[in-house]
Amino acid sequence: MKFSFVSLFPHLIEFYFEDSILAKARKKGIFELDFYNPRDFSTHAYKKLDDYKIGGGAGLLIQAQPLFETLETIQKLHTNVHFIFLTPSAKNFNQKDAKRLSKKEHIVFVCGRYEGIDERVLENFANELFSIGDFILTGGELPALVLCDAILRNVEGVLGNVKSLEEESFESYLLEAPSFTKPFVFSKNFKKFVAPSVFLKGNHAKINAFKSTLALCKTKFFRPDLFLEHKRKNLKDFYEK
Amino acid sequence: MKFSFVSLFPHLIEFYFEDSILAKARKKGIFELDFYNPRDFSTHAYKKLDDYKIGGGAGLLIQAQPLFETLETIQKLHTNVHFIFLTPSAKNFNQKDAKRLSKKEHIVFVCGRYEGIDERVLENFANELFSIGDFILTGGELPALVLCDAILRNVEGVLGNVKSLEEESFESYLLEAPSFTKPFVFSKNFKKFVAPSVFLKGNHAKINAFKSTLALCKTKFFRPDLFLEHKRKNLKDFYEK
Repeated sequence: MKFSFVSLFPHLIEFYFEDSILAKARKKGIFELDFYNPRDFSTHAYKKLDDYKIGGGAGLLIQAQPLFETLETIQKLHTNVHFIFLTPSAKNFNQKDAKRLSKKEHIVFVCGRYEGIDERVLENFANELFSIGDFILTGGELPALVLCDAILRNVEGVLGNVKSLEEESFESYLLEAPSFTKPFVFSKNFKKFVAPSVFLKGNHAKINAFKSTLALCKTKFFRPDLFLEHKRKNLKDFYEK
Repeated sequence: MKFSFVSLFPHLIEFYFEDSILAKARKKGIFELDFYNPRDFSTHAYKKLDDYKIGGGAGLLIQAQPLFETLETIQKLHTNVHFIFLTPSAKNFNQKDAKRLSKKEHIVFVCGRYEGIDERVLENFANELFSIGDFILTGGELPALVLCDAILRNVEGVLGNVKSLEEESFESYLLEAPSFTKPFVFSKNFKKFVAPSVFLKGNHAKINAFKSTLALCKTKFFRPDLFLEHKRKNLKDFYEK
C-alpha cells in the first residue's frame, strides 16, 4: 500500500513514521510513503503560494495553480490514486472509513494550510473529503496523519495481535469498558488502589456481563449519541432474527 | 502557557513544533513545551511498562505504577496543572473546548499506547478525558497534538490575523462556504476554471448572501447533524429577541 502526502510542511509529517509500530511496518515493506510540496510546482517568481480570497474575507488561500500541477503530476506518475482532501468542511472520518480505505492501493492526502484551498482544486481532484472533528487546526497535516494511522492499523501485518482489532470501541457502537492490569492491588503513598474483584474470580460469563454493563454506562455518560445508535442496532438485530 | 506531554514516544510529538506558525510562536515565548516518558519512571528491572489485562482480553495495557510516578512528579514540580487523557472512550473534543482550554495555565496531555491505560490512573489524575472521533489510532500522540494545535490557535499572538478566528466553521454551527483566490479565471490544459461571478461584482450584500447559501448547502449535505444544530440555534435566537 502507498500513501502520498501533499503538504507545504512534509517534514512535519515524515517524523511520525520514524518510531513505534508504524516504523516497523514501514521497514517490513507493508507500506510506502512519499511527499510532494506544492511550493516546488509554483510558477511564481518567488514561489508565492497564497493569495487573498476573491470577494473578500479574512486570511489567505492556497492558489489553484501549484496544487493543480502537483496533483496532475501524481496522476501521471501513478495509476489508481485516491485523492483525499482534509478540510473542516466535510463529513467526519470514522472507523468504517478506516476499514474501507485500508483496501485501497494508493491514497493521496492533500493537506490545506492558511485559510484553505481554492475550491476549484477540490472540484477537480477530490475523491473524498474528510474532517476529523468540529474544531479548527493550523493545517491538514495532523488530520492526514490521523487518517493514515487509523487506516494502517487495519492493514494486514501492521498490528501484532489481530484480535485487538475486534474488541475495540465503535465496532459495536459502544465505548470500551475500563480495563485494569497487574498488580491487582496497587499501593502508593500508603493508599491501596484495587481493581474490581469480579475480574479476579475467573468466572468468564460474570466478567463479560460486568464489562458489558461498564461499557454501556460509559457510553451512556460520555456519548449519548453513540448509545442511541447502539440501542437502534440491537433493536434492528432483534427484529431481523 | 505551558504544555507537557506524557508519552512513550516523545520525539513523535516534538517534531510537530519545529516548523510553521507554531514554531514561530514557540520562539516568541508564547508557549513552552516539555516531555515526560513513563519509561523513565518504571521501577521494573527491564523498564517493562505493559502487562496483560486482568480478567482476560486481547492486548496489553500500560501499568499503573510508572504513570502514577510520572504524574505525581509533574504535580510536585508545578502548580495549576490540568490533566487531559486522550482515549477513544470519551467525549469528542470540539471548538468550544479549544477556546475554553486556551485560558489554562498548564495542560498535561497523557497519551495512551497499546490497548490503553490502567483505569486507576485515570480515576486518580484525569481532569478531563477527550476523544477526537469515532476511530482507533495506534496511540494518543496524534490526538494530543490535535488538541494542542486547536488550543494554541486561540492563544493570543499565535495567529497573525485575529479576524481569521471569527469567520470559521463551527462558530455558528455552519461549515465555511467554498472560497476562491486569484486568478478569477484559471486556465489549464486548454480548459478554463472560473470562480463564481458574484464574487467579482463587488456588491458585498450579494456576496454575503451567496456565501450564506453555499454554507447552508454544504452543511446540509456533509453534516446534517450540524445543520439541525444551526436551525435550533436560529429558532432560539428568534424567540429570545
